[in-house]
Amino acid sequence: MKSKLKPWIFTASCPSVLGTVDVVTRYMAEYGNYVEDIHSFDDRAADRFFIRIEFHPQFEGFSAEEFNTGFSPRAEEFEMEWSLTPPEHRPRVAILVSKYDHCLNDLLYRHRTGQLNIEVPVIISNHPDLKHLAEWHDIPYYHLPITPDTKPEQEAQIVKLLEEYDIELVVLARYMQVLSADLCSYLDGKAINIHHSLLPGFKGARPYHQAWEKGVKMVGATAHYVNNDLDEGPIIAQGLQQVDHAHYPEDLIAKGQDVERITLMNAVRCHIEKRVFLCGSRTVVFSK
Amino acid sequence: MKSKLKPWIFTASCPSVLGTVDVVTRYMAEYGNYVEDIHSFDDRAADRFFIRIEFHPQFEGFSAEEFNTGFSPRAEEFEMEWSLTPPEHRPRVAILVSKYDHCLNDLLYRHRTGQLNIEVPVIISNHPDLKHLAEWHDIPYYHLPITPDTKPEQEAQIVKLLEEYDIELVVLARYMQVLSADLCSYLDGKAINIHHSLLPGFKGARPYHQAWEKGVKMVGATAHYVNNDLDEGPIIAQGLQQVDHAHYPEDLIAKGQDVERITLMNAVRCHIEKRVFLCGSRTVVFSK
Amino acid sequence: MKSKLKPWIFTASCPSVLGTVDVVTRYMAEYGNYVEDIHSFDDRAADRFFIRIEFHPQFEGFSAEEFNTGFSPRAEEFEMEWSLTPPEHRPRVAILVSKYDHCLNDLLYRHRTGQLNIEVPVIISNHPDLKHLAEWHDIPYYHLPITPDTKPEQEAQIVKLLEEYDIELVVLARYMQVLSADLCSYLDGKAINIHHSLLPGFKGARPYHQAWEKGVKMVGATAHYVNNDLDEGPIIAQGLQQVDHAHYPEDLIAKGQDVERITLMNAVRCHIEKRVFLCGSRTVVFSK
Amino acid sequence: MKSKLKPWIFTASCPSVLGTVDVVTRYMAEYGNYVEDIHSFDDRAADRFFIRIEFHPQFEGFSAEEFNTGFSPRAEEFEMEWSLTPPEHRPRVAILVSKYDHCLNDLLYRHRTGQLNIEVPVIISNHPDLKHLAEWHDIPYYHLPITPDTKPEQEAQIVKLLEEYDIELVVLARYMQVLSADLCSYLDGKAINIHHSLLPGFKGARPYHQAWEKGVKMVGATAHYVNNDLDEGPIIAQGLQQVDHAHYPEDLIAKGQDVERITLMNAVRCHIEKRVFLCGSRTVVFSK
Repeated sequence: MKSKLKPWIFTASCPSVLGTVDVVTRYMAEYGNYVEDIHSFDDRAADRFFIRIEFHPQFEGFSAEEFNTGFSPRAEEFEMEWSLTPPEHRPRVAILVSKYDHCLNDLLYRHRTGQLNIEVPVIISNHPDLKHLAEWHDIPYYHLPITPDTKPEQEAQIVKLLEEYDIELVVLARYMQVLSADLCSYLDGKAINIHHSLLPGFKGARPYHQAWEKGVKMVGATAHYVNNDLDEGPIIAQGLQQVDHAHYPEDLIAKGQDVERITLMNAVRCHIEKRVFLCGSRTVVFSK
Repeated sequence: MKSKLKPWIFTASCPSVLGTVDVVTRYMAEYGNYVEDIHSFDDRAADRFFIRIEFHPQFEGFSAEEFNTGFSPRAEEFEMEWSLTPPEHRPRVAILVSKYDHCLNDLLYRHRTGQLNIEVPVIISNHPDLKHLAEWHDIPYYHLPITPDTKPEQEAQIVKLLEEYDIELVVLARYMQVLSADLCSYLDGKAINIHHSLLPGFKGARPYHQAWEKGVKMVGATAHYVNNDLDEGPIIAQGLQQVDHAHYPEDLIAKGQDVERITLMNAVRCHIEKRVFLCGSRTVVFSK
Repeated sequence: MKSKLKPWIFTASCPSVLGTVDVVTRYMAEYGNYVEDIHSFDDRAADRFFIRIEFHPQFEGFSAEEFNTGFSPRAEEFEMEWSLTPPEHRPRVAILVSKYDHCLNDLLYRHRTGQLNIEVPVIISNHPDLKHLAEWHDIPYYHLPITPDTKPEQEAQIVKLLEEYDIELVVLARYMQVLSADLCSYLDGKAINIHHSLLPGFKGARPYHQAWEKGVKMVGATAHYVNNDLDEGPIIAQGLQQVDHAHYPEDLIAKGQDVERITLMNAVRCHIEKRVFLCGSRTVVFSK
Repeated sequence: MKSKLKPWIFTASCPSVLGTVDVVTRYMAEYGNYVEDIHSFDDRAADRFFIRIEFHPQFEGFSAEEFNTGFSPRAEEFEMEWSLTPPEHRPRVAILVSKYDHCLNDLLYRHRTGQLNIEVPVIISNHPDLKHLAEWHDIPYYHLPITPDTKPEQEAQIVKLLEEYDIELVVLARYMQVLSADLCSYLDGKAINIHHSLLPGFKGARPYHQAWEKGVKMVGATAHYVNNDLDEGPIIAQGLQQVDHAHYPEDLIAKGQDVERITLMNAVRCHIEKRVFLCGSRTVVFSK
C-alpha cells in the first residue's frame, strides 16, 4: 500500500449535514483509491464541513474525468464544492515585486531547487531593480511603472499578463502598491500578500516604525489572501521574531525580513498543496 | 448539526489496506453518527493506518454496546484495534512524585479548574514532602519510602495501589526513581514520564548540569511513554527554552521547570483525548 | 572573586554624555565593589543612557548610606537618576484579581517556592471567589466589591490598603476593572498589568473573541506598566502561542492562559530584578 | 552624543579581579571615547571576566595605534586579552561547501545585500556542483576533489588558499567532510561549522534519519567552532523547528534546512560583530 509517489489531492467543502464524510470516503473505496491521509473539520460557527484527502489510485488507468463523472451527482446532493489535483500539477505562479528582494529571492531559490512545486512563468514589478534576479533564473520580467494617473492602465497590463501567462496564483512578494478595488476583486482568493506585521496590529504604512514607537518586544508578519479590504483578507499564516529595546526601526526591518519570507513561503506552500479553505473571513488550514 | 457538547471519540489502527477509512466512516454514517473531525494517517514506514474521529450521535438512545456489536465484525476483517470513548469519560490518573512540586502543582491546578478532564484519586511518593499539596486538593497521598533493599516491595505496593484505585494512566511527575524492568513492563503504554532534556540528548542523571557543561543555547524537556529502556520510551511531546551563557545549572533548572510542566501537561492532554497512537518506537500524535 | 551570594544591584539613567559609564564604574572600583555583570545602553532616539550593574562589595562593612553619600555628588553632575538595591531586598507586592485564578495561582506558587523573590502581604479583589487560594497561602484577602457608583470609594480603599501594607509594586493579575485616571496616575510606573493580546492589536474587551473573528494563527499576551491610557502603558514583555482554525474562542482563552501567566511572571521578575527602565513610552529591558 | 555611524568595537577577557571593568571604562573616558553599549559578564565557574564595548571616538584624529599604545600597559596588569575592531572592518570569510546549497545561497544573499558585513573572496568545495552560484556572485570557486588517499594533499591546498586569500574566518556551510586533526588545529577558533542536530544529540552521520527513528517532535541545528573533537566544538548558536509523525526523514531534512541556514547566519553574525568569546569548552555570547 505504501508509496513515495506524490498523491492525488481531493478537497471539498459543503454545509454540515450527516453523511458528508461518508459520501467522499465511500466513493474513494468503491473506486479503489487508497486514502493515505484525511483531515476533515466541521466549523461550528459557520456550520460548514471541510475535507482534504491524499490518495493513490490502486488500479491502472485512473482517470480524473471518470472520477468527476462518477462523483458529481453525489457531490450535488450535498451542495459540495470540490476539486481534484493530480500529482504532477505545478501551479503557474506570477510574482509581483517592487524593490525589496528578500521574498523574491527566497521564492525563486525554492522554486529552482524544487522545494516549492510551482512554475514561475512571469515576474512583474513597478521598478526595474530586480530584473537581474529574474534574468538569472531565466524568467521574463515586466517592468510596469506606475503613477497615480497611470494606475488603471498599469493594472490592466498586469491583468493582461496574468491571463496571457495563464496564471493560477499571484504572490505579492512585497509589492508596495495599494491595489484598486477592481484588481482586488479580480484577484479574490487567488492572490497572497505578505504584510510586515502581526495583523490586525500595525496596518498601513511603515509598520516596523509603528511597532518601534510602541516598544513592542515581538515583530511579525502575516500572509493573507487579497480581498477588497486592504490588509484585511483572510489570514493564512503568521510568523514572529523576538526583539528588544536595542532594535531601532532599521533593525526591526532587518529581523522582520526573515519572518516575512518564511511566512510567505509557508502560505504559498499551504495554498499550492490545497491545504487552505476559505471560511468567510477566516481560513481553515490543514497544515502538515 | 453543530454542537458544543463534547464528542464521542473513536480511534483505531490496523495494517494499511484499501478500505480502512471507508469501513469506519461508512459505519458512522449508517448508524447516524455525525462526524465532526477526522484525522487519519498512513505510516509508510510501518505500513500501518491510524484514525481518530470525533462524532456526535444524531439519534437518541445511542448505545456503545450496540456500536461495538455492530462494528466488531467489520473491524475484525481489517485486524483493527479500536476503542470508543464516551464524552463523560474522565480517566483515573495516579500521579507519582518525589520532592519537586512544579509538575504536580500544575497538574492539580488544571485538574481542579477542569482544564484537564481527569480524576486524580491517588498521589504516591517516595518522600513525604508534597503531602500538603495533596491534602489541599483532598487527594489521598501515600508515602512509600524506598531503599535499594525495599525496592521490590515498594513497587509491589505501588502496583497494589494502582489496582485498588482502578488507575488508567500513571503520570511520573518528576518521580526520581529508576523503575524496575518488571514495573516498566506492567506500565507499558499506560505511564507517561517527563525527562528534563530534549531526549535523546542528556540521558541519565543531572541533565541540566550536562547541558551546562556543553554550553548549550537551548534546554528542553521530553514527555514519553515508559518502556523497558530507561529514557527511551516513545516520545509524545517535547518543549524547549532558549538560554545563554549567564545561565548556571541552577538557572537552567529554574527555566526548565516551566518547560517540563507544560510539556508534561501537553502529553497528558493528548493521551487522555486519545490523540496518541503507538507506532513501534515512535508515536503518531493527532494534535489540536 | 566568584560568589554565589546574591549581588547588590545598581541602576541608573541620565542624558547621554561622555563619561556616564566611567563615573559609575570608577566609583565601583574605588570603593572595592566587584562588578560581576554590567549592561548599559544608549538610546539614540531618546538621547538617554541606561545602566544596570550587579556587584559584590569586597570589603566588610559595606554601607549603602556611605555609598549614597559618596556617589551623590558625582551623580548630580550627570543629572543621573539612580538606585541601589540590597541583596536581601524583597519587594512588597500587592496582587489584584477578579475571578480568573491562573495568574494568581502561578504568582503564589512561585512566591511560595522562592522562584519569585517577593513578599505578598495582601491580595485585593472585587469578587470573593479566590479567597480560598489566599487563605491556603496565608495571605490577607480583601474583597472590595465595586459598582459604577462605588468606584471612587472602592479605589480609595485600594489605595489605603496599598499604603497600609507599604506596597512597592502592584500586579494586576487579570483584575477585570478599568481603573480611574486618578488611580492610574497614582500607580504610574509601579503597577504591572497583563493584557490578553499582543498589544496594540485587540485592545479593549474580549480580545480572544476579536482574535477568533479575524482568524489569527497566533494569540499572545502583553505585560505592561499601567498609565493613563488604558491598554497603552509601556510594554515590558510579550508572549505568544500558535493556534489554528480548530480553536474556538474558548480554546483561545484556554491556550492563552499559559501565555498570560508566563508573560506576567517574566515582567514581574524583570521589574523586581531592576532590569526594566522607562524610556518615554517605551522600555529598556536588560533581560537575562 | 547619538550617532548612527557604526561604532568601534572593543572586546577583552581576563581573570576575574577587582577593577577589570574600571580599567577599561576609565581609559575610554579619559581618551574621549563615547561608550554606547557595554555588556560584561563574569563567569563564576571559569573565574573569568568578559567585556564588549561599542564606542564612538569624540575627537577627530582617533588612532587605533595610539589607543593600543596607551592601553597596553594597563591591560598587561590584568593579563587581559583584548582587541579593537574599526567600524569599516569587513572580515574576509572563506566558505567551504559540498553539494547542498541552502547555506551558501543564504550567506551569499546576505553578503550581496549588505546584511552580513563580510567579504567573501573565495569559495572552496570538494564538488563542482555549486560553481554557478559562485560565478553569479563573481567569487572565485575552487573545486578540490577529495579521496581518502588525497585528503592530506587536498587539505594542504585548502590551507594554502586560506593564506593566499588572507582569510580571517572559515565557514563550513555544509561541507560534508571530516577534517583531519591537523586542519582542525589550524582552524581552532576561526572556523564555524553547522551541524544538523541539536548537539550533542544525533552526532555523526545522517542525524535527521537518527531523529526520525527516535520519533522526535523537534529537529534543530547547532553552529559551533571547529575543534579537535568532531561535532563537539564550543556551541555558538542553536535553532529548532517543530515536527510531527507525518515528517519522514526527507521532510525533516527539508524543514531542517531553514533552521540550518538561519542558525549558521546568526553564528557568523555574532562572530563578526565580536560578540562571541571562548570560555573553555563553552562560549559567552553577548547577543543583540
